[in-house]
Amino acid sequence: MAAQAMTTDAPARKQAPAPLNGVDTPALFATIDVVKNQPQLGAFQFRATGEWLGGTRSRTTMSEFSGAGGEHSHKAAYTANADHPTVLCGADSAPAPVEYVLHALAACITAGIGNIAAARGIALKSVSSAVEGDIDLRGILGLSPEVRNGFGAVRISFDVKGDAPDEKLQEIVRQACARSAVLDVLTNGIPVSIKT
Amino acid sequence: MAAQAMTTDAPARKQAPAPLNGVDTPALFATIDVVKNQPQLGAFQFRATGEWLGGTRSRTTMSEFSGAGGEHSHKAAYTANADHPTVLCGADSAPAPVEYVLHALAACITAGIGNIAAARGIALKSVSSAVEGDIDLRGILGLSPEVRNGFGAVRISFDVKGDAPDEKLQEIVRQACARSAVLDVLTNGIPVSIKT
Repeated sequence: MAAQAMTTDAPARKQAPAPLNGVDTPALFATIDVVKNQPQLGAFQFRATGEWLGGTRSRTTMSEFSGAGGEHSHKAAYTANADHPTVLCGADSAPAPVEYVLHALAACITAGIGNIAAARGIALKSVSSAVEGDIDLRGILGLSPEVRNGFGAVRISFDVKGDAPDEKLQEIVRQACARSAVLDVLTNGIPVSIKT
Repeated sequence: MAAQAMTTDAPARKQAPAPLNGVDTPALFATIDVVKNQPQLGAFQFRATGEWLGGTRSRTTMSEFSGAGGEHSHKAAYTANADHPTVLCGADSAPAPVEYVLHALAACITAGIGNIAAARGIALKSVSSAVEGDIDLRGILGLSPEVRNGFGAVRISFDVKGDAPDEKLQEIVRQACARSAVLDVLTNGIPVSIKT
């Protein structure tokens, strides 16, 4: 979930552009209209359940969620495994939890780029991204109270190719960032309540 | 990556406890000692590269990272796909980016629980978690400047079974949260720089 089509800096359209970039643009514009007229349908809840597999390994299942006034199931009960690398005493059987944070960020903004380009009638050829996060393990190892547990900094870059000048393609990336759910979560933080 | 063994409230140990819970506890304690003596080895960088697959679909590859004074490769070039659900005009071919945020949180704390229980000599039987995040789509749809793009709130709960009283098991969860990289990222935010 990331940036969507309706942007404050785009001219109002009487009619949605045709499907493009694999995006059903008319359906996207219709969704925006529906939530505009019935804001309560915009309330979504995503869920996941986790299971420890031993050591630092775990599996998460993402199956059900609610929104648009009802309950939904994914086409399949999707799962994702995680583990620590061997250098951090794990079995390296899957990506590390912090790597999934980088994945979520890249995926969210990339989806937004696809949607926004379609809404603006710009055909994309390719979108690639590279993301990196610096982390000082003295935090999670409890070795320094001045070092935080998480990333100290994250950098992400995009290379977008499509039927528009570079400036227009870059503006699509900027708008995708301006409407990205994951970028907002990472930069601004969210309240997390924990029940032990 | 999540909480680790050395906790400020645990008594100092002359000798690491034996391997337990699938955790090589002596190796874990040795790692902590190494970083304690050579703090520069604690500097890690995790990386991911993303590729747009059309529509709201993308694939992320997590392969290389650096830390402990060198470059590392995962046992395999791990990939993860993401997509939007159909109700949000995606193809629902994979979990949504925001669901991976929930996965990362559950996986990080769960790995910490495994490590900390082993460090404290407590055998675990099972760890399960449930996490949910509320999101108002009026944010990413650009329909209300007062609504944020990301989760308004996230809640996570744990059910831990093991050879210790409930109070000790709950204390392990609390310590795992206190040393979780992903929980820190989500609650406190991180600086993200973007290159378009």
